[in-house]
Amino acid sequence: MDFLDQVKWNDDGLVPVITQEAETKQVLTLAWMNREALKLTAESGHAVYWSRSRQKLWHKGEQSGHQQIIQSIRLDCDNDAILIEVIQKGGIACHTGRHHCFYWRLQDGQWQAVEPILKNPDEIYS
Amino acid sequence: MDFLDQVKWNDDGLVPVITQEAETKQVLTLAWMNREALKLTAESGHAVYWSRSRQKLWHKGEQSGHQQIIQSIRLDCDNDAILIEVIQKGGIACHTGRHHCFYWRLQDGQWQAVEPILKNPDEIYS
Repeated sequence: MDFLDQVKWNDDGLVPVITQEAETKQVLTLAWMNREALKLTAESGHAVYWSRSRQKLWHKGEQSGHQQIIQSIRLDCDNDAILIEVIQKGGIACHTGRHHCFYWRLQDGQWQAVEPILKNPDEIYS
Repeated sequence: MDFLDQVKWNDDGLVPVITQEAETKQVLTLAWMNREALKLTAESGHAVYWSRSRQKLWHKGEQSGHQQIIQSIRLDCDNDAILIEVIQKGGIACHTGRHHCFYWRLQDGQWQAVEPILKNPDEIYS
């Protein structure tokens, strides 16, 4: 059986994907893949997602150069979530110019930004 | 503004939650919370999820004793994914008796189970 058939795709044909940095173990992003994105990711060794906002394949880093090189691809016990380990090119996973996307931390009942901006997004996407 | 209002809940009123072990940085699970689950998690310091299969609040560890003690709660740049760091009681997060849920690894085009069962589920849930 094709490994793609074992994934439980949701009603939109997507599965959530946790991306973790291999070296630091930092969780970088939560993104989504459709069947084609997972196939391309496995074949190419680079992370390819499905952009829900743009409704098209998203070759991570195609604009920014911040590609993600695949180290491993894992599926969970319910077959409905994926975990990939990657090498993060440029050390920046977030479109805000931060190392990773989870930079709001709940403190005293409020979300506080606790991670520095490493590069101005205008420079990243120019 | 209430921190709960800043979360972008999906059409089902849910948000995906990545749970990471504080000590090992292992990603344990991907689960879901609704508004009440996140509120209870923040207030109690124990992970509370929304079970989509049972359609009710799921106080993690209520049956198994494998509770998750909250160390931090983070939100991502798009406000539509949460990352929690926890201490995993009993060292077992997965209902299959494994340390974590991502035990299928893609190797040679197939998902291979690569994590040992630490405790028989019949014992966990008896």
